[in-house]
Amino acid sequence: MYVCHTTKELRNEVSRVKKERKSIGLVTTMGALHEGHASLIKAARAENDFVIVTVFVNPTQFGPTEDYAAYPRTLESDCKMAEREGADLVFAPAPGEMYPHEDMTWVEVTGPITKVLCGRTRPIHFRGVATVCAKFFNLTQCDRAYYGLKDAQQTQVLQRMVEDLFMNVTLRLMPIVREKDGLAKSSRNVYLSPEEHKAALVLSRSLRHAKEAYGKGERSKKALVDLVMKEIKEEPMSDIDYVEMYGMPGLFEVEETLHTPVLLAVAVRFGTTRLIDNVILGVEA
Amino acid sequence: MYVCHTTKELRNEVSRVKKERKSIGLVTTMGALHEGHASLIKAARAENDFVIVTVFVNPTQFGPTEDYAAYPRTLESDCKMAEREGADLVFAPAPGEMYPHEDMTWVEVTGPITKVLCGRTRPIHFRGVATVCAKFFNLTQCDRAYYGLKDAQQTQVLQRMVEDLFMNVTLRLMPIVREKDGLAKSSRNVYLSPEEHKAALVLSRSLRHAKEAYGKGERSKKALVDLVMKEIKEEPMSDIDYVEMYGMPGLFEVEETLHTPVLLAVAVRFGTTRLIDNVILGVEA
Repeated sequence: MYVCHTTKELRNEVSRVKKERKSIGLVTTMGALHEGHASLIKAARAENDFVIVTVFVNPTQFGPTEDYAAYPRTLESDCKMAEREGADLVFAPAPGEMYPHEDMTWVEVTGPITKVLCGRTRPIHFRGVATVCAKFFNLTQCDRAYYGLKDAQQTQVLQRMVEDLFMNVTLRLMPIVREKDGLAKSSRNVYLSPEEHKAALVLSRSLRHAKEAYGKGERSKKALVDLVMKEIKEEPMSDIDYVEMYGMPGLFEVEETLHTPVLLAVAVRFGTTRLIDNVILGVEA
Repeated sequence: MYVCHTTKELRNEVSRVKKERKSIGLVTTMGALHEGHASLIKAARAENDFVIVTVFVNPTQFGPTEDYAAYPRTLESDCKMAEREGADLVFAPAPGEMYPHEDMTWVEVTGPITKVLCGRTRPIHFRGVATVCAKFFNLTQCDRAYYGLKDAQQTQVLQRMVEDLFMNVTLRLMPIVREKDGLAKSSRNVYLSPEEHKAALVLSRSLRHAKEAYGKGERSKKALVDLVMKEIKEEPMSDIDYVEMYGMPGLFEVEETLHTPVLLAVAVRFGTTRLIDNVILGVEA
């Protein structure tokens, strides 16, 4: 496996691979790789001739009060995991490589899709995500890019960007990977104390209960949201940011009685750590 | 020559051409093709296996008080000229094809490069240009795209976008094409009365005088700008928007004594018609 740090090296390598007419699969990460990322690399490996993993803690998607500086940086072990899962190349650039000019060129998806859910408290987050992913898609000339449905809103924003800008990449959206106890895998889980970790299990548990209720025929948006909200509130260590439901794909507003697939998504703080989780209701998953 | 109107037809054709490993040259236009566009198509023809011309009056680059509705639309004669110059395909989409969702995904180059010159009075113009060109680059998967230096600021904004987003296209910037009397070719020249046309010759004349002064060794920014400003002001029908000078490439601020190539650019109204023209000083052209 080849590790490179400059866009020049990456482009040389991509150019070589494209000349051989090989398909390219991309997994963009902020490092601190866990089993969730591993499942994406594995999927990319299975469907492409050449697999690129990017490791880049993207400054432009963090708000001024967020954890950019503290975000875990573990390049050595990331490279080991990427290699183990079959990646051909890891690209780990410095910020100046990705943002060559002081003044930015932004890619910004507008409308409710970036304003609801995490967009409400993280107003610049998805602009940073869309911008950096557009750069990675162009740099790698990837045929397919792999994203986990844990970051469900991110997947919808990127899908919208790809459609609107007619990008030549297929996004492959993969199921959430969980700990054995149900906690959704996240690089931020390392911040949790053992007590907070235990308390945070209420997220996956309450979402599972909503899914069960939906399976038994519950089609009231309010009933399903309330079920999750109530269960999370009963956990004393939880501090709810949101429990909300939107239509899928595209995160459109849905009426009280559900007719189409929906995303039921939560963001909740445990101590200083903000976790997200979700379930999609109305599609086989 | 093939004329198509939907992104689906265009992508099918591009996919076919790419399979044959042919190079693709792109000329994006708003139609009303004139000799300036013809020179771009000719250049694309000379350097590429397959030449695409887009004809699209892009609504997102017009301000609310600008001439979107009145902009000349002459698709039939545009196709004739494109064919005559050797284009293989004309893509003439409706706005809904290019903007499939009500909420936009914008590509926006920020900083002075989009704020000076035309950016001062046309605050959303370059956002619209960058967005639609990003779409066309992706749709056509072009290797090279051709732009005239008449729209000098546009060329610099697009070059910045290509660099920042690592787009896989080379921009080819071509010299200004002029009428025999010196007026820079523009689709908006048709708006001019014979008197206004005659008055507008002061633009190319004053810029030529500045170039001559530069050729004789004048290196004062103020002297060169004032020379042009004074000559245009002496024409009673002129109404100056700006006469300004910035460093090239990238439109950076320059000091009073010139050491690097500069763009000397003007925007002037004659009646209701706003014309632009420019000269680059310090490079062979």
